[in-house]
Amino acid sequence: MSEKFAAVEIISAKRDKFELTDDQIDWTVAAYTRGVIADEQMSALLMAILLNVMNNREITRWTQAMINSGERMNWSMLDRPTVDKHSTGGVGDKITLPLAPLVAACGAAVPQLSGRGLGHTGGTLDKLESIKGWKANLSNEQMLKVIQDCGAVICAAGAGLAPADKKLYALRDVTGTVQSIPLIASSIMSKKIAEGTGALVLDVKTGSGAFMSDPKNAGLLARTMVDLGKNAGVKTRALVTAMDVPLGLTAGNALEIRETLEVLAGGGPSDVVELTLLLANEMLDAAGINPK
Amino acid sequence: MSEKFAAVEIISAKRDKFELTDDQIDWTVAAYTRGVIADEQMSALLMAILLNVMNNREITRWTQAMINSGERMNWSMLDRPTVDKHSTGGVGDKITLPLAPLVAACGAAVPQLSGRGLGHTGGTLDKLESIKGWKANLSNEQMLKVIQDCGAVICAAGAGLAPADKKLYALRDVTGTVQSIPLIASSIMSKKIAEGTGALVLDVKTGSGAFMSDPKNAGLLARTMVDLGKNAGVKTRALVTAMDVPLGLTAGNALEIRETLEVLAGGGPSDVVELTLLLANEMLDAAGINPK
Repeated sequence: MSEKFAAVEIISAKRDKFELTDDQIDWTVAAYTRGVIADEQMSALLMAILLNVMNNREITRWTQAMINSGERMNWSMLDRPTVDKHSTGGVGDKITLPLAPLVAACGAAVPQLSGRGLGHTGGTLDKLESIKGWKANLSNEQMLKVIQDCGAVICAAGAGLAPADKKLYALRDVTGTVQSIPLIASSIMSKKIAEGTGALVLDVKTGSGAFMSDPKNAGLLARTMVDLGKNAGVKTRALVTAMDVPLGLTAGNALEIRETLEVLAGGGPSDVVELTLLLANEMLDAAGINPK
Repeated sequence: MSEKFAAVEIISAKRDKFELTDDQIDWTVAAYTRGVIADEQMSALLMAILLNVMNNREITRWTQAMINSGERMNWSMLDRPTVDKHSTGGVGDKITLPLAPLVAACGAAVPQLSGRGLGHTGGTLDKLESIKGWKANLSNEQMLKVIQDCGAVICAAGAGLAPADKKLYALRDVTGTVQSIPLIASSIMSKKIAEGTGALVLDVKTGSGAFMSDPKNAGLLARTMVDLGKNAGVKTRALVTAMDVPLGLTAGNALEIRETLEVLAGGGPSDVVELTLLLANEMLDAAGINPK
């Protein structure tokens, strides 16, 4: 198959601070997914993107190309509005666990496709796996059944969802190219948009325990992601919240599950309760449900 | 074996514009040669070096680490001074071919380890291979025999010479990281210093037909390489010469061999004759031989 571009041409353009065209971006993401662009070429491009940035048009197109690399889920068969939440994570951040059932109990459907730990932060799936017998991987049919029965589902994103992002995420982790706002924003939002949620609340952490320790960068990341969501027809809003001390009283997979159960039973640490309620209100409002 | 550093730590340091320490550079070049640093990690580092540069101390150490990755040749058994020439290349640049025998005829020994074509420029070895039966690969013993018999040898660098550079060169070619003065200078000079020549004349090309089209960059590359040579005890000088039109009247492997024979027979295009004499004078002077 004859290729539209050569990888070196795309790398050199970004290296020399040119904007990538829509065609170049579409080809790059698709060719990397197909294995035509090698890992060592993509990592050079990622470093050039990290250091020379991408503008909003480029980020939007890159995100769309990552969505197009896989399937896009659809929840229109549900009789209630869908809303999801994403947190950029921090030590002790178990908010997803009490939040999803709470929001479901108020009448929204929560299709929460979650991730694993990254760097020093724990992943929601890792925490849930401390429950004996709990499985992270569900088929699309199983996800639909759970969300119809419970109003919420927390599970791993299937292999068909933004496969370009899966490859890029693993590559960024070993090549020092995690810390790029265009790359972080497109990674998170491609998964969330492909997941098919109608509304989305982003919890962007800042402070010494967060990836984006500088509040200015956290604000820029939040704005970038909100724009990406809105452009894709997802009602998106973002909160920038502090992560200078761990959330709650525990950090550790099984311990955080225990703390979650305390919160759902009406107790638990006040900071976890407070952030859970704040995000629940935002999610319900974004979903068009008046929580009273 | 426990490693002194992690690749991501080195990549992140250069990404964030820190100077790499001597220890970090030694480890990086050795670990890449051993395969501990993966290609996709090295290419991210190369792009960070290209965009965030290395200072003179870093370039010197990087070059030394590349020399240390392999053997260093020794010509002290010869009864005449050694001198070599390197050109950064351009279309029609066949100067090595008449130059090496000319300088040898004047009393110097010329151990010319040459390369293949790069980008749009032809390689000396490719040109010589248009002579039926000519072999690029010689053992060290064969090289010594040829240089003792003829005063000059033109052949491929052995696998033992700066193996780190061989891996890096191939990687740079496919990752858009060729055009970095620190990387070009360390690549050329690690090979030339490991080759064991006592004196070296560099012909740095500039103009529309050269890799360094900007004369300012060509001058910076020349100065960087002269410093590297002098620090390693090689009498090094550089000329910056124009490459706006092809050298001579022919471009193409067999055609350039024919033009070379014309020059050696006392004829040939005047620009080739002129540059050959200019470089021969510099080489003999650097080798301490008075060409009259």
